[in-house]
Amino acid sequence: MIARLCANLPNGRRVLLGPGDDCALLAASTKAQLITIDSMVEGVHFKLEWGTPAMLGARALSINLSDIAAMGGNPTFCVVNLAIRPGLGTRFFDELYAGLAKTATVAGVSVAGGNITRATELAITIALMGEVENGPLRRDSARPGDKIYVTGTLGDAALGLRILQKKVAARGRQRDHLVKRFLEPTPQLAIGRKLARLKPTPAAIDISDGLWQDLGHLLQRSGVGGRVFSEALPLSEAYRQVYGDNCDLALSGGDDYELLFCASTAISDAQLRRRLGMDVRCIGEITREKEALLVSATGQAQPVHGHGWDQLRVT
Amino acid sequence: MIARLCANLPNGRRVLLGPGDDCALLAASTKAQLITIDSMVEGVHFKLEWGTPAMLGARALSINLSDIAAMGGNPTFCVVNLAIRPGLGTRFFDELYAGLAKTATVAGVSVAGGNITRATELAITIALMGEVENGPLRRDSARPGDKIYVTGTLGDAALGLRILQKKVAARGRQRDHLVKRFLEPTPQLAIGRKLARLKPTPAAIDISDGLWQDLGHLLQRSGVGGRVFSEALPLSEAYRQVYGDNCDLALSGGDDYELLFCASTAISDAQLRRRLGMDVRCIGEITREKEALLVSATGQAQPVHGHGWDQLRVT
Repeated sequence: MIARLCANLPNGRRVLLGPGDDCALLAASTKAQLITIDSMVEGVHFKLEWGTPAMLGARALSINLSDIAAMGGNPTFCVVNLAIRPGLGTRFFDELYAGLAKTATVAGVSVAGGNITRATELAITIALMGEVENGPLRRDSARPGDKIYVTGTLGDAALGLRILQKKVAARGRQRDHLVKRFLEPTPQLAIGRKLARLKPTPAAIDISDGLWQDLGHLLQRSGVGGRVFSEALPLSEAYRQVYGDNCDLALSGGDDYELLFCASTAISDAQLRRRLGMDVRCIGEITREKEALLVSATGQAQPVHGHGWDQLRVT
Repeated sequence: MIARLCANLPNGRRVLLGPGDDCALLAASTKAQLITIDSMVEGVHFKLEWGTPAMLGARALSINLSDIAAMGGNPTFCVVNLAIRPGLGTRFFDELYAGLAKTATVAGVSVAGGNITRATELAITIALMGEVENGPLRRDSARPGDKIYVTGTLGDAALGLRILQKKVAARGRQRDHLVKRFLEPTPQLAIGRKLARLKPTPAAIDISDGLWQDLGHLLQRSGVGGRVFSEALPLSEAYRQVYGDNCDLALSGGDDYELLFCASTAISDAQLRRRLGMDVRCIGEITREKEALLVSATGQAQPVHGHGWDQLRVT
């Protein structure tokens, strides 16, 4: 099955030997290499009734692509491990692969190989490689005084998930927008590469576990603290209509797959937007004090409780 | 947890950025790169009561190392995805990682990163990279007239598995030997690298699904057939004592993680053993006819039924 994915993809010429041998063989490169691994497990990360198999395949790759984006890299090759359970037929996997292949093509990724194993729950695990031309964007380089920015809007995917789980009611265009933000995340590859060209190189992380948790990872790695202004959190129109001004899910919902980055005050917001060709939002600043504070509209600063850093997540 | 694995391993100096960021960053290399992915799932590939957590961690890496061995490569870096289920504590995972780290150190592999996810069954999925200096050994280069060789003895691991499953009775040293061959396979990295230096480069595959199935993969990829002499199959003393002269498990049992390779008749068995520094066994020959035949002691040649090629296994 995986062999079909390997046809004529942008990096295909660098795949010297694709699926069907003991390993894939990739031509040497003069650039530093990135590698990441991530997994989606049925019942933990998704339910089949939430979307199509194609969406599932696409999403499994997208969440890995987001890690490459957060380093400012170009994704190149992946290998796919599929744990399959009884009850799912060839058509299901054909569709899943088609979704994965389409996302791979758009991102310039070649599927170089894979493995299929039996299991009692469906799981898609992808190891994705990439290359660094500039940067890389790291988590450990935030400096006191830097401004904290995010791409896109926050909390939409978490709200979409709750709509799929029937914990929150929504309909029409709002529902479609929010659910799509969960099912079909957009890895910010282009913006990651543009960020990697800035000097000094911004610190960055992708927002997968939720803004507060991922900011925590970055602050911890950089040995600094931060203040985030709740009023500044970018909420979508659909989010506000369905969930009001409650920014809980924007703070800690997860699954955004937007980028959080820190840039020097030497560059203005307007310059930054021009350089990136995208509207990014300044949501706070890096401080010397090793704590993360949320500053309310009235200026009250307080730690956010119940959103501790996820000790399980290691890359 | 994974961060602890990354200390001072032989390839560590090439890990520019290890666990703790969105991706691992590896220094560029001038050599062609190998990549493979493999997974072990509780209840499918192992039961916890069969061995220690350290054995499990070591085995998860060893089965990937065997794929690098089968290409004649040097293993370099891996990323580990651990799907953890309720009921297993920190100590279990510490031991599992210790086993994995020890095997990594011996093989010269750096654990560059990883991911941990919740699941209902324990699964360890590893993507392993390697480099090719000579060769690589491929599955598609066997030529009619080549002799077929295997390293080590066959069927021990399959018999060990059946002992663990209490399907076969054994005791004492025989039991220990056979069970160890299943729980602690030895990837043939050194022999793979030596094979890759031979001219013409031998075709090769590792024996993971069983001799007959893996020979089938190699014959299919090379567009040739083969004859295997049942009398020539290398059976260990322990195998014979527990299972007699029945070569079923040696033919199709799986989990051997030995190498099967094909070499030109221009090199004699004695020369080959000298070049490889290891006793390898010639078990048959490659033919033009696209079929695999087992030749009995009386010279009767017949296809082996019930050991079809595993359509699920793609690399």
